Order: sequence, then structure tokens, then C-alpha cells
Amino acid sequence: MTVIKFLSKPKLKNAVLIEGLPGVGNIGRVAVSYLIEELKAKKFATLYSKWFFPFVMLHETYKIHLLKNEFYYWKAKKRGQRDLVLLVGDCQSLSPQGHYEIAEKILDLAEKVGVKEVITVGGLATGELEETGVIGAVTDEKLLKKYEKYDIDFNAGEKVGYIVGAAGLLLGLWKHRGKDGLCLLGQTAGFPIVTDPKAAEEVLNVLVEILNLKIDMTKLEKRVKEMEDFIKKVESLQKKALMDLTKAHEKPEKKDESLRYIG
Amino acid sequence: MTVIKFLSKPKLKNAVLIEGLPGVGNIGRVAVSYLIEELKAKKFATLYSKWFFPFVMLHETYKIHLLKNEFYYWKAKKRGQRDLVLLVGDCQSLSPQGHYEIAEKILDLAEKVGVKEVITVGGLATGELEETGVIGAVTDEKLLKKYEKYDIDFNAGEKVGYIVGAAGLLLGLWKHRGKDGLCLLGQTAGFPIVTDPKAAEEVLNVLVEILNLKIDMTKLEKRVKEMEDFIKKVESLQKKALMDLTKAHEKPEKKDESLRYIG
Amino acid sequence: MTVIKFLSKPKLKNAVLIEGLPGVGNIGRVAVSYLIEELKAKKFATLYSKWFFPFVMLHETYKIHLLKNEFYYWKAKKRGQRDLVLLVGDCQSLSPQGHYEIAEKILDLAEKVGVKEVITVGGLATGELEETGVIGAVTDEKLLKKYEKYDIDFNAGEKVGYIVGAAGLLLGLWKHRGKDGLCLLGQTAGFPIVTDPKAAEEVLNVLVEILNLKIDMTKLEKRVKEMEDFIKKVESLQKKALMDLTKAHEKPEKKDESLRYIG
Amino acid sequence: MTVIKFLSKPKLKNAVLIEGLPGVGNIGRVAVSYLIEELKAKKFATLYSKWFFPFVMLHETYKIHLLKNEFYYWKAKKRGQRDLVLLVGDCQSLSPQGHYEIAEKILDLAEKVGVKEVITVGGLATGELEETGVIGAVTDEKLLKKYEKYDIDFNAGEKVGYIVGAAGLLLGLWKHRGKDGLCLLGQTAGFPIVTDPKAAEEVLNVLVEILNLKIDMTKLEKRVKEMEDFIKKVESLQKKALMDLTKAHEKPEKKDESLRYIG
Repeated sequence: MTVIKFLSKPKLKNAVLIEGLPGVGNIGRVAVSYLIEELKAKKFATLYSKWFFPFVMLHETYKIHLLKNEFYYWKAKKRGQRDLVLLVGDCQSLSPQGHYEIAEKILDLAEKVGVKEVITVGGLATGELEETGVIGAVTDEKLLKKYEKYDIDFNAGEKVGYIVGAAGLLLGLWKHRGKDGLCLLGQTAGFPIVTDPKAAEEVLNVLVEILNLKIDMTKLEKRVKEMEDFIKKVESLQKKALMDLTKAHEKPEKKDESLRYIG
Repeated sequence: MTVIKFLSKPKLKNAVLIEGLPGVGNIGRVAVSYLIEELKAKKFATLYSKWFFPFVMLHETYKIHLLKNEFYYWKAKKRGQRDLVLLVGDCQSLSPQGHYEIAEKILDLAEKVGVKEVITVGGLATGELEETGVIGAVTDEKLLKKYEKYDIDFNAGEKVGYIVGAAGLLLGLWKHRGKDGLCLLGQTAGFPIVTDPKAAEEVLNVLVEILNLKIDMTKLEKRVKEMEDFIKKVESLQKKALMDLTKAHEKPEKKDESLRYIG
Repeated sequence: MTVIKFLSKPKLKNAVLIEGLPGVGNIGRVAVSYLIEELKAKKFATLYSKWFFPFVMLHETYKIHLLKNEFYYWKAKKRGQRDLVLLVGDCQSLSPQGHYEIAEKILDLAEKVGVKEVITVGGLATGELEETGVIGAVTDEKLLKKYEKYDIDFNAGEKVGYIVGAAGLLLGLWKHRGKDGLCLLGQTAGFPIVTDPKAAEEVLNVLVEILNLKIDMTKLEKRVKEMEDFIKKVESLQKKALMDLTKAHEKPEKKDESLRYIG
Repeated sequence: MTVIKFLSKPKLKNAVLIEGLPGVGNIGRVAVSYLIEELKAKKFATLYSKWFFPFVMLHETYKIHLLKNEFYYWKAKKRGQRDLVLLVGDCQSLSPQGHYEIAEKILDLAEKVGVKEVITVGGLATGELEETGVIGAVTDEKLLKKYEKYDIDFNAGEKVGYIVGAAGLLLGLWKHRGKDGLCLLGQTAGFPIVTDPKAAEEVLNVLVEILNLKIDMTKLEKRVKEMEDFIKKVESLQKKALMDLTKAHEKPEKKDESLRYIG
């Protein structure tokens, strides 16, 4: 039960999917959300799944919303640009196997609307304030040539060795379909910083250059501040909700002598 | 494997589904059970699921019962009233993904018998004795207008931010089907109080007014006392059973030197 | 993936299924295994499932066996007896939802070969040496009349309130199919006793009387001793194997500074 | 969602599947990988599954790879040899039920390409340096006769009693299909040794004799050293990734007083 509901079915040409779901430092979420706003991209589909947390969020203090991932599109305005599909959302899968199932659904949608390449955006928590810059990984050697002119360090393997969740699986499964993709990871000091506007800006700069876009960056820091409260709240709620869900696992009271073991 | 078995298939007009499954303070369970009794509503379907605890209950010391959710209906007696479907039960899903699957099955049934609106009833444990009153949340802004004349505080988001399990998911998924609903949460001090008759009464008062019903409230406290013993026992059993189930995870005895690691 | 493989398809009349899978004190397993031996019942089907532990057992030091449940049948020899299906096995489901799925498969098989009634056999660990005797529970009031003439205490609800796993679910789900059944629980002091020959004998005595069988009980204690070593080993192995499986959850070594967090 | 992708579909005669997935001491992985290299076996299929860890690996510091199992084949060169299918990979299932599902998929593939017999290779951690040699187990008594002439100790049952994961389940399920197989376990002192070249060599010697192959063993130790760094890294990453995945289970910060319990 992973369901995608379409508001419209855009027909795109040679499009790129840019993924920015929640993750380390929320760098992908911040960067892709900012792109959506600045490009005035249009929402065309939502995805919800039994693999998400089993609760609803309240927006504006009273409005009920399922946890969801959302797809936006934007059509190229001039030569050298490409049509875009932008993916953001409230959460990723709660269970390991759900990650694979949701990633497959996302790629099915991508193929259906004309996506040819996938770029995922994430973060790398280095634990050190002075380490910055964008780390990259690709599905194939030929991509390395295509992207080496940008300010990306392709020694990700030395620093990390693996990429967890959507940022990694979307590319691994996309490659399995014989297609190409790029992962961009912003380096950040990591916890307890929830969102790192500087790291998000660095990734955005690379992304904007690759996609040949013109984006006003001056509002980014202000937007990150606005988002941060919401993101902090959601993360706190998810942890709290998960604890509520697992409350049943607590020990029953010792005094209940009438309970005996049976089977 | 979530199965619904029908005893009869009522045809209802413009009906409202009222959900009162176990949850915080058992406020929904108490309120909806009381409605069922006072209205003499008729049972028409039962639901059981592999997502429930894997054990059976013994009623009257010797009769075996699967854990189940039960659906009752009641037909409007006069103008201004609406046909009702009332949902109560022994438990909710044991696993996160089960919550979504069961909620979808419940909504499928609701659509089949003519339900147009969903009202879920739950509790909010504030930890403070002096906080009382009914908190509300809705699927859409227009519902706010419809319900603002009742004694409901629609600032739920400020106090809670999310609604876990059936009380939330039924509405989130119902909204996804393009339909409307309301969640009513009774504020209660919370643990160690198992059931809070006062909080349940407050929610019932609002519910009865919305549904334009006439209900004798004088027996509520007595009924809550009667239910409390049963509820306490079930909750204790569920915790105990869950521990039995996970017993296999205990460490084997240290002395068993003949056991070696292999794979 | 729960698979039943038939060696033959017996056609039985008005048969009773007797379940004796592993559980408290292994009373069901011991009692039903003894019945199978003494009656020289014939194996006709095996069941294995992805819900069992993911390992194989070694019999006679070198022969590989999947964990399995096994079905035997025995045809009535004289008036007043009934055809029997006897169910024993190495284990029950490792996961809560697996219990429901396996129980449904067992009942499908039971219906297919002509079973009309189900009797499950289990144990009740009271923690007290002096409490003995057989506790009973049924799916319906009319069964109480049928079985009250035997030496069964039908106040199980007072002592236990619930029945975990196959002994309970087979009857709960069987009742849901509109059919009848009985659960017999031998009272035992419980851990650390692995198998309790006295409790098993008490249940066997009741079972033999209900089924109108003639069974030589003199070899029971000797057989229990023989089984006990095997049962102890299997239980130890299951715990050990489960720990091996979850080893991946252990913390990585602290010293591996080169590992960083990413996503 | 366990998917096998074929690069080619070899037609083999009377072939043997040799399994060497990760496990105790990585003896199977080391031994079968070495065979693949020395025989210059050809890759013909890859398997990935939602039951694997939800992350991708980075090879050569920048290339993204799904976790996978890989199938190679080699055709017999002379009389007395048999066609081979060789199975190696990055990991086994993360969840118990996944082990069964993946094993069934592997055996489906095996039957499709002409495999008649399965040999699984694993390790047995004895905790004692002086215990060496190869332990064996088989699916049927007649195999004992076939293999007793080789240097295999068929008292595995005395030492271990069970075989976890692919090394065991592939044989248990293969036997259930009415077919034959052999398990070879190299004895090793166990942790903290990650790979034990000596134990791997002992198993390889037996395997090479059974399969009537000529393999140059002189490069084994060197190869094991080379593999060891990679294997250590992968295992560390898997543990680290699993911890990242379960981070959501951590307690929320105590100070967040605005969070309340609801449901």
C-alpha cells in the first residue's frame, strides 16, 4: 500500500528528477523546497504509504494532513535548461523494506512523466565545523566526466562508503533500470544543528549551475529560519509518536499477581 | 489478512461514522460504547486482522473470542438526525503498517454502507488535572465553519501537532478520498487514570449536540466503572501477552557451552 | 509464503483436529506426540513458513531438516470413536502476524480433509506446584454442556483471561468460520521445568476419554524423558539463532573514526 | 520485491550451485570468490531485494551500487567435472522472513538454468584455535555415502545442531523440492577474526576435490588479505547504517514540554 495520487499528468521532455526528502541536516529538503518556491514549480502528485509513521499532522492548529511526499514539475524556459520534477516530503519509510518499495514507486512515476536522469540531494555529517563543500557520487563512470567541471568532490567513497535511504536507493534502483544519476551531499558539522543553511546553499549553487537556472539566493537564510521551527517540530513529533506506538512494549505492573503465563 | 464479516448489510443515507477504538484515557471507547447502548444500535459487522495481537480473549471465564473491531448502525428517528455507523473494538494494530491497512478497510466498509462523514473520538493526556474541555481538528477549512458553533477548541495543533492511530489516519485517508471529517479529543490528566468519565462525558455532550441526539447521561459514570475493570484487564493482558511473545528474544543460559556460532 | 505439502490426501468423516505445537511446558507437544505414536497415526502433510526461524535443524548429527509442522491422521476403529487429524511440529511463528496467517492455512487444510471440530492442547504455568488439573475453554456455550461431564475446569477465564498463539487463534478463527472447538490447558508449575509429564498425562487422560480411545499410558514418562533432551536443545538453539540473527544490531566498534553519518 | 536480472541465460547440464554468501568468518564468501576468479567464471545474473539493507555502497570512491547477490557460471572442461553456478554477494536478508523468500528465488533460478545439486559453504566459530577441519551436513542419507570419501566430518549435529541463513535454508528448501545437497562448514576460532584464510583453504581443498577442479592455491592468502579490508568496511557500514536507520527510536529531548500524549 504505497499510493500515488495525480492532480495532473505533465508531459515532460528529457526531464531531471531532483529528490530532496528529509535526511541529515535536512540539506536536500531545504535546497529542493527553495528551488520549488523560487521556480514557482507546480504540484502534480502526492504519495502516501503504509511505510510512513501511522499518524496525521495538524497544520494551522486544526487541519489534518496525512504524511506525504509531493511531486512538483517545472518546464524549461530557455535553451540549456531541462524540464524538472522536484520531490519533497514529510518523511521517509519507517521500515527498511519500505525504502525499497517506495523508491520503486517513485521511479515508476518518474519514467511515466518523462524523467531521464535522477539527482538526489542529501547531507554528510562530518562532525567537524571546518569541513564544507559538496561531495558527489554517480551511477556510472561517464557521469563523472559530465560533472567533473562543477565544484563537486568525487571522493565520497573515502569519506562515507554508503548512502542510506532515498538519496542512495533511488540511484541504485535507477541504475538497475539502465539509467543515469548523480548524488550531491552537502558536508555539515551535523547534530545538534537541525538545518544548515550554509551547506544547503553550497549544494544549491552546484545544482543551479548544473541545471542552468537563475535563482535569487538572498532569501535562502530567511527561509531556512522559517522552515527550521516546522522541521524541528515534525522531528520531535515523529520521535514522540514512535514512543507512543511502542508503549505497549512496556512491562505490565508487577503487582498484577492474577496474570499467569499460558500458551 | 484483514477480514470483515457482515451479519447484515444496512443501507444508510448520508450517514456519519463515529470511531471509538481504544486509545488515551479510553475516551473514544467509553463515549462510543455508551452511545451504542443508549441508542440500542445494531451490530452488523466484525473485523479481525493479522495486525492485532496473536491471542484470543476469554469471556465469561470460558468462551473464546478473537480480538476484533465491531460495527453497529442506528437509523435516524427524526428530522435533523443522521444515520450512524458506530465503531468500537478490543484493540488497534500492533504494527505501524497495519494501522494504514486496517484504516483503509474500515473506510471501504464505510463507503459501501453509505457513510458520508467521519467523526473520530480520542483523548489528549495533558498531564494536568485542571485542563479540561474538547479539542477539535478537521479535514478541511469549511468544516471549521460548520463546527465552530459547538463547544470545541480548534487549537489542537498548538497543543498536540499530530494524532496517532485510527483517530488520525481514518481522517487523513478519508480526506485523501475527497471527503470530510472531524476529530474530537477529550483532555484528560492522563496516566495512571485508565478511563476518565468526566472527559468522556464532555466529548459525549459535544457529540450528542452535533448529532442532534437525546441521551440519558445519568448512567455514564456507573457504566464507566463497570467497563473499567474489563479495560484494565485487557490492557494488562495485552502487555503480558506481548512479553510472552518476545520471550524468545531472551538470552539462552550461559552454561550451555555446547552451543557454538555457525552460519 | 506458508506452504503445505501433501504426502497423501486422506478422506475423513466428521474428524477432530488435535493441535499440539510447542508452548508452555510443552504439554500439547508431549501429549499429541504420544497419541501419534500409540495410535500409529500416519503422516500425510508438512507445513513450512517464512514466519518460522530462518534456520535448519540437523537430525542424527548430519541430516538437514527445515523447521516444520506435521499433520498425521488416524481413522476410527470402532463405534464412538472419530477420525483424527493430529498436528505437531518444531515451532510456531516468530512474528505476531505470522500466527494468524499460519492458523488460517492450518484451518484451510482441516476443512479440506473433513475436520468438523478442533481441540487445541496447551499449558498454563501457575508458578505453584500444588495447582494441577485440566483447564478448559470453548468456542460456544453449547460445547460447555457437551464437555462438562469430563474432568475439566471451565473457569479458565478467571485464571488466565487469554490464550496466546496456535492454541488460541486456531479456535478463534475456527469459530469465525461458524465452527466449534475446545481448548485444554494442563496446569504446571512452569519454568524452569521444560516438560511436565504429570501435567501432560492429566491432559491425555481427558483427551483419551473424550475421544473414546484406549492408550497405554505406562510409557509416557519414559517417552517424555527421551523427548526432553531434544526439546531442550531445540529451544536453546532457537534462542541462540535468534541472537545470531540480531547480531547486526550491535554497535560498531567505537574506534572506527572513519565512519561518518550520511543520508 | 526480490528481483533477479539476467545478463544472459546459460544452459547448463547436471550443474552444481555453490553458495558463498557472507557469514561466519566469511569462509563461504572467500572460498567461492576465489573459485570464481581462478576459474574465470562468467557473471550471468544479479539479485537485489527489499530484504537487504536500505542503502547503496560506493565503489572506487564515487560509483553507486545496490547491495546485491551475483550469479556466475562455469562450464565443465573435461570428464569428471560438472557445470557450476557460483553465488556470492554483499549481504543476506535483514529480516527473518526475507531469508525464506530470497532462498526460494535463488532455487527457482537454479532450477531454471539446470542445477541438480546444491553445495553451500559456511563457517563454524568454535571459539578455540586448535579446532580445524571441515564439518559437513547433507539433505539425505545417500549423500553421506557419496561424500564420505572426502575429508569431511559428518558429526556437524553434535557440534552445532542448526545452520542459520542461506547456508541452511537453501538446502532445507531444496530438499523440500525433492533434491539433494551438501553443506560444508569450515571450523574457525571465530571473532574477532573477520576472515580466516586457513579455514577457507581447508574448505576449498575439499570443494576442489569434490568438483574435480585444478586450482592454484598459492594466491589465496594474498587475495584474502585484499578482500579483508573491503569486507571489514562493508560490515562496519552495515552496522553503522542499521544504527542510523533506528535512530528514530531514540528518546526525544526531555525539555520539549510542549509535547503531550494523544491518540
